[in-house]
Parts: sequence; C-alpha cells; structure tokens
Amino acid sequence: MDFAEQLAEKTNEIEEMIRRYLPNADTYQARIFEAMNYSVEAGGKRLRPMLMMESYRMFGGKSKAIVPFMVALEFIHTYSLIHDDLPAMDNDDYRRGRLTTHKVYGEAMAILAGDALLNFAFETACEAFALEPENPNIGKALTVLAKKAGIYGMIGGQVVDVLSEKNRESVTREKLDFIYDLKTGALLESAMTIGAILADADETQVALMEEIAHDVGIAFQIQDDILDVTGTMEELGKPIGSDEKNEKATYLSFLGLEEAQKMVQSLSEQAVAKLDTIEQTNPFLKELILSLIHRRK
Amino acid sequence: MDFAEQLAEKTNEIEEMIRRYLPNADTYQARIFEAMNYSVEAGGKRLRPMLMMESYRMFGGKSKAIVPFMVALEFIHTYSLIHDDLPAMDNDDYRRGRLTTHKVYGEAMAILAGDALLNFAFETACEAFALEPENPNIGKALTVLAKKAGIYGMIGGQVVDVLSEKNRESVTREKLDFIYDLKTGALLESAMTIGAILADADETQVALMEEIAHDVGIAFQIQDDILDVTGTMEELGKPIGSDEKNEKATYLSFLGLEEAQKMVQSLSEQAVAKLDTIEQTNPFLKELILSLIHRRK
Repeated sequence: MDFAEQLAEKTNEIEEMIRRYLPNADTYQARIFEAMNYSVEAGGKRLRPMLMMESYRMFGGKSKAIVPFMVALEFIHTYSLIHDDLPAMDNDDYRRGRLTTHKVYGEAMAILAGDALLNFAFETACEAFALEPENPNIGKALTVLAKKAGIYGMIGGQVVDVLSEKNRESVTREKLDFIYDLKTGALLESAMTIGAILADADETQVALMEEIAHDVGIAFQIQDDILDVTGTMEELGKPIGSDEKNEKATYLSFLGLEEAQKMVQSLSEQAVAKLDTIEQTNPFLKELILSLIHRRK
Repeated sequence: MDFAEQLAEKTNEIEEMIRRYLPNADTYQARIFEAMNYSVEAGGKRLRPMLMMESYRMFGGKSKAIVPFMVALEFIHTYSLIHDDLPAMDNDDYRRGRLTTHKVYGEAMAILAGDALLNFAFETACEAFALEPENPNIGKALTVLAKKAGIYGMIGGQVVDVLSEKNRESVTREKLDFIYDLKTGALLESAMTIGAILADADETQVALMEEIAHDVGIAFQIQDDILDVTGTMEELGKPIGSDEKNEKATYLSFLGLEEAQKMVQSLSEQAVAKLDTIEQTNPFLKELILSLIHRRK
C-alpha cells in the first residue's frame, strides 16, 4: 500500500472509532447530541488522533486504552472550532464546506454543543480508567490532555489571538510565535506526547516528541496562513482571504510567501530529523509529517 | 461554635483553597486570568465544595487529594453561570450583585473564560494524580466529575431548559423533574459521591449519597423558584421575577407556593433521614442540608 492508501485506511479506522463514542439516544436532550454529531461528523483530516495513534505505535503501544484518548482529543479540537466560529468570535458561516454549527442549531445550542464536547472529551478519556484501572500512565496522559487544551495551551493561544484581532500592529513576531505555539501547537503536542506516554516511553523520549510536535504545529499553522492567500474556497471549504478580512496578523505579515514556504519545509524536515534520533521507528509517521507541507487544504 | 460560625469558618477555608488554585501570571493571556478570577471571586455559597468536603469527612477522609476536586467542582459551577448569562442564553446583566462576566469583559472573553474554567477544572482535578499517583479512587472520582457535569448531567439539563424557554406549555411535570435533576442535582450528586469515593466509602454508601444529593438538589431548585417570586433583588443580588420574564416553567407552574414550600421541607428531611441510616455521622452536614430550606438567597 502506498502512503495515500494507508492514510485513507487509517482515517477510516479513526472515523469508525469516533462514531462509536458519539452520543446517540432518544431523550429530552437529543438535540444537543445532534449538534455534537453534526460538528464532529463535518470531518476534517483527523490529524490529531492520527498523530497520537502513530506515536503510540512507534513506541510499541498495543492496548485499547489509547482509543478513548484519540477520540477525546478530536472532540476538544471540534469544540474549539464551534466556539471559534460563533458570532462573538470569528463570526464564520462556513467550515469545511458546510454551515457552521450556530448557523444550523442557533447560537445557544452552539455554545452548549461546544461546552458539551469539551466536557464529553474528558468523559470519554476517563473510559480508559475502566479499561486499565491499574495503569498509572492514564492519569499522566489525562493531565497532559487537560493542560495542553487549557489556558497555558490552546485556550491561551485563542485568547491572545482574539485580543489581537483588528489590532494587527500590536502583534510582534514573538507574540505571533506565542499564539501559534499555543493555539495550534499545543494540541499536536498533546497528541504526540500522550501517544508516547501511554506506550510507556521514557521521559526523554516524551520530551523529544513534544519538541517534534511543536515544530509540526508551527509548520502546520504557517501553511494555513499560506493557504488563506493561495488556496481556493473549493479546496478549503471556507472563504479564503479571511485573515485579511479580519485584519489578522499572520506569518505573511513578517515573511514573504516564498520565505514562509521555505520555513514550512525546513520545520518539517527538522521534525523528521529529530524523529530519526529515536531508536524506535514508524515510517508512516514520517511521511505523514512531510505530507503536511504539500497539503492544499 | 454554633452552626453559623462553623459555616463562616468553613466557607473561608474553601475560599482560601480556591484562591490558591486560581491562575495568576503576567503573560500575554493575562486578560483571561482576570476574567476567570472575576467570575470565581464573585462568591456564592460554595455549597458544592462544602458538600464534597463534609461528605468526605463523614467517611473519615483525611488526604489532601480532595482539595483539587473541591476547587474543580466550583470552577465547573462558575463556568456554567458565565455561559448561562450570555446574551444568546439567559442574557442576564447581573449576578450576585455584580455585572456579569460578558458585561465587563465582552462576549468573546466571556465565552473563552467559561471554556477556560471548564477545562481548568479538569486540569485542577488532575493535580490529585501528582499527590497520590497510586490511588485508584482518583480515576473513579474524575469519571464521576466528568459525567455529572456533562450531557447526561448538568449540560443535559441546561439544554432541555434552554429548549423549553418561551415554550412553557411544552414542559410537563416529568420534564421539569428531568431538568432540575440534571441542571442542579447532578453537580450536588457529583459533590457528595466524590467526597464518599475519595474517602473510600463502599459502593452502597456511594449510591446512597447520590440519592441524598438528588433530594437536596430538587429541594434547592424548588427553593430557587420560590425565591424568584418571594425574594428581593437586594437579597438575591439579581433581579427577581426573571422566570416569569423569560416565561420559564418552574415548580410554581404546577404547585401552589405553600405546597412548594412543604415539598422543600419534606425533601430536606428525607435527605437527612437517609443520612441517618449510614453508620458514619457528620452533624454539620445534616445542619447544612436543613439550612437550605430556610435560605433567603
């Protein structure tokens, strides 16, 4: 199987895992289940659970306890998109080619669906305790999951991002690094370190995986900035030029397009070079990281 | 010391615990720390952490691992109030005599502050793993914390509540029980069962504490309905008559005032009678539960 086939197969596998955990019952609150399902099933690359699974496999992980964490991380990513799109935030009508959650279910349900997915993420991750009550790595993994999604992680980045909107001149290169590091980097770090932790990797290896994920996160975000300028609505499933519309500082405020593209390439290569210093190996993970620089969506 | 003095002392103790966990650093995202602090420090009775602590003490709990859970539960309660008050939800300008979070920090920061507190609650609870890595009750307690706050707990109740607003005639007595059970009852159940679980109570005892908390929750919520009619803005720190304004179904839609007051009394007595069937005892906990029926705020 070539990379594209492997990627498709693994993505399907993850879609199946996610579907199994989605809530679905005919109760008074069924409407929120619908809104949660709508948002999660809007799709996406499932990059975070995939990076977690592949990091886990790389270190020889074999138990089922990784699955609730993979699903939980995707729930966290999804809730952040729902709340990001709200009228009081980015006020976006489309995401991945479909109407955003508040456009379909109304603002109140979208706020609650986001809250519900964030909370349900922790509920889902906690299922790992039932699978392996004696495994001390589960508590460690949960601590990382919470920390990387929070005020010193993803939410911290979102906050600075929101505060900087329509105030582009206040964003220094250092502050932009901070935003990208937290807003995008933190969840990728969560993915790769939790994979390593649950596979019982040692502390040095976990720290190295965190560094690698950090490089991948910055590269990923710069590529987003590039696509917002060079992509098409058809490819991205959302209007392009939204950074300019929202007067957002991006890497292209500091670098030329060509320089930014080179940076994506070199960060990805640097990440792979660090991966190569680890004794364990996972060729698919390397290809996955490198594929991020060629992506068009 | 009489009950009022004990209550004041214990409340201060809890305030101190909460303060120690609140985020506070001079970083780019400091504004969100401010918004979180503003909301948490608005005060309130700290009933949930207190019920947790007293249930824990009742079963002989002595470790420090209870503290992060007490603080976490109060963070969850606070985030739910911030999001409840948002313009797209109840659209309230005042809470506990102060402007609501979105009135002070704007809507975007209020959404993020709510998200941040929910996430930070799990981050905080996870600190218990560092205190006692080998204690299997921590995973169990965390599972309860997540479940009771989620779509089958508090959020589930909020969803049905929001869907029923301005549509009072759709709310049957059965549906109202469902809303109150989840919206208010679930976090009280979380408080009392986590206290018991961390103190290593057995499963039957934990189940009984859940029942007791359920009775207390319904009594508490009916008392809220009563106060919205009989209280004053000065006592409550928020406008009275808001249920009528929002065309909300309450217990007073089904019961007369006197009947409702009797129900609060009998539910509280029932809860205390159940407490008395447990060998362990905590006189303060009983008084605390009974005090809820006399409260004016």
